[in-house]
Amino acid sequence: MKRLLSLIALCCALHLSAQEALWWKTPTTSPEINENRTVTFRLKAPYAKKVEVTGDFLPEGNAEMRKVQPDLWEYTTPFPLRADLYSYAFIMDGVRITDPSNVYVTRDVVTMNNIFIVDGPRSKVYQELDVPHGTVSKIWYPCDQLQRMRRLTVYTPAGYSENGTTRYPVLYLLHGMGGDEEAWITLGRVAQIMDNLIAMGKAKPMIVVMPNGNMDQVAAPGYGPDGNIVPTIELPRTCDGTYEQSFPNLVRYIDRTYRTIPRKNSRAIAGLSMGGFHTMMISKEYPDLFDYVGLFSASVKKNVDGVYSPVYERFHDKLRTQFAKRPALYWIAIGKEDFLYPANVEFCELLDRNRHRHEFLETEGGHIWKNWRFYLKEFAQKIFK
Amino acid sequence: MKRLLSLIALCCALHLSAQEALWWKTPTTSPEINENRTVTFRLKAPYAKKVEVTGDFLPEGNAEMRKVQPDLWEYTTPFPLRADLYSYAFIMDGVRITDPSNVYVTRDVVTMNNIFIVDGPRSKVYQELDVPHGTVSKIWYPCDQLQRMRRLTVYTPAGYSENGTTRYPVLYLLHGMGGDEEAWITLGRVAQIMDNLIAMGKAKPMIVVMPNGNMDQVAAPGYGPDGNIVPTIELPRTCDGTYEQSFPNLVRYIDRTYRTIPRKNSRAIAGLSMGGFHTMMISKEYPDLFDYVGLFSASVKKNVDGVYSPVYERFHDKLRTQFAKRPALYWIAIGKEDFLYPANVEFCELLDRNRHRHEFLETEGGHIWKNWRFYLKEFAQKIFK
Repeated sequence: MKRLLSLIALCCALHLSAQEALWWKTPTTSPEINENRTVTFRLKAPYAKKVEVTGDFLPEGNAEMRKVQPDLWEYTTPFPLRADLYSYAFIMDGVRITDPSNVYVTRDVVTMNNIFIVDGPRSKVYQELDVPHGTVSKIWYPCDQLQRMRRLTVYTPAGYSENGTTRYPVLYLLHGMGGDEEAWITLGRVAQIMDNLIAMGKAKPMIVVMPNGNMDQVAAPGYGPDGNIVPTIELPRTCDGTYEQSFPNLVRYIDRTYRTIPRKNSRAIAGLSMGGFHTMMISKEYPDLFDYVGLFSASVKKNVDGVYSPVYERFHDKLRTQFAKRPALYWIAIGKEDFLYPANVEFCELLDRNRHRHEFLETEGGHIWKNWRFYLKEFAQKIFK
Repeated sequence: MKRLLSLIALCCALHLSAQEALWWKTPTTSPEINENRTVTFRLKAPYAKKVEVTGDFLPEGNAEMRKVQPDLWEYTTPFPLRADLYSYAFIMDGVRITDPSNVYVTRDVVTMNNIFIVDGPRSKVYQELDVPHGTVSKIWYPCDQLQRMRRLTVYTPAGYSENGTTRYPVLYLLHGMGGDEEAWITLGRVAQIMDNLIAMGKAKPMIVVMPNGNMDQVAAPGYGPDGNIVPTIELPRTCDGTYEQSFPNLVRYIDRTYRTIPRKNSRAIAGLSMGGFHTMMISKEYPDLFDYVGLFSASVKKNVDGVYSPVYERFHDKLRTQFAKRPALYWIAIGKEDFLYPANVEFCELLDRNRHRHEFLETEGGHIWKNWRFYLKEFAQKIFK
């Protein structure tokens, strides 16, 4: 052991450019979750003139950090944080950076954030607990619409490999604009939420399928043959009807490849923001596919300006057909501060006027992952029951 | 489409703290791979006093960036880069940060780096090409040694799900100190390397199993029930013999769970640095398990100071037994600048003296991932043939 340690010491001491840095522990502790549930952030930055922390727990968005030592900046939240999973980053002299002391980093479109969890009953479901864990797979499937292979993420529940004959219901879970097949599994904590709900008996064991809704992308950045190209401001062919039309084939592929229960009453679809738009469109376009429908902070438009697709035609007729077939659940959730809130209230009124049975959940907060994780947790407990 | 774009515009313009930032494109292009294969790095940092770039392509380790506009720093390599996959980061006024313009980030123990690829014949194998892709799964398996579930990464080759009866050979691939079950699949580009080699017919279709060699860790940081705790300077029980002893059970689990060819001639084991140490120990401890053995920049010690384990007893006897059974391949690779180079040369001399047949590959460079990816590429072409 000593010899191993001395090798590390040697390696670090020499700082040879030919050796890669080996660090087991970052020199600063950040974030630190204090006993009273306030949280302290620290950054070692001797020459910085201004350091801020930005995060989804700050009412104003940003807060200035204070120089507490010649080389150390610090900020402690003036209030205890409610148990939840939070994300944050630092802004050092105008440059947005992740916290070098925290290895938990997630990508949100092209922005990197750190995450941390404040422990408590409300955040238990987001944590890795000592419960049976499902398997997360990145698979490539043949997309008939694009005539090529595309990547998607699949969660299979604990016991799937062992119980060789049991068949499972399937939840199709769609990301928002700028997201991809990585979004729900990283930012959305799907594996942790499903593992925990299933272990507690609050959700049925189910398969969760997370496809990529950008038809110009075969996979998330870095996993498609697009070399070093980063996503562009152009919408990557998300709302021209093609994605919606590709769904029956995707469902067939999943039913062929996994031990699913290949019936409407064992299929759910849900999506956030743009994925809510897709969910609304797909579920009405193919009214015999999904019995459970979840719109999370959805963009509830009836068509897309300037785009022609048969998918966006005869919206009201198709909605009427869908509801005539009495879906087991049509669930709409949105935060009161979400910029899509008025449109969702209006959509609910439309459903009410037409006596289309649905459930509506109004929460605090805006168009943020904190809400989408919570909506998934709620929705997952309502389906396949 | 216009309406969607206007929603984004609205969302960005309002900068509401309740909405998450939506960016499809970072404002600066970095890195830019120029036509002559030099590479330009850029950072927008109006108030920084000094910005450096650090990377595995710089002979000196670091290079100073130059202020080319009031808010823009830039550095162009003075030489073209050989086709390869490279990693880098910036150091802004003493703080190590990732490039905010590059979403390709990997974690190396507790350090985050960006990556980029310079295209060319030598780097093709690291790229996502339009070839059949295998599946990458994170599974949890019962570890008898620890009496609990642990996480590991499994690559199954393209066609595994479709060809329901074909059985495959298995490569067990071990990480180095500070690594975990994420290291080989992210930093090591295992999925890309295997997909490409298999598609070119240069490697046999095989399953690759990447376990976690830290017996104090059930999973990589963030995936075990260790909350926000970062790895510590203590070695997480990597070299007390337990990991080595857990291997026969792991192999049995894999043979039970996947369609493997459960025979010595269809099993390989390889590891980098500390993983090379484990590979050497495991392959001699269980001489009937693995026919192909790969030591990549291995720590080739005969025991661990101050540690007693039956695994570390009678090294030479066990090595003799292993070689008496004529392994199909015992392959050692190391860079001339590696701090473990002298020890590896000495180990080869020991093998020579005892007429233990092995192959030795000496390369440029040191103890770095660039070499380990290359060694995997070479080794994978030599096994199961």
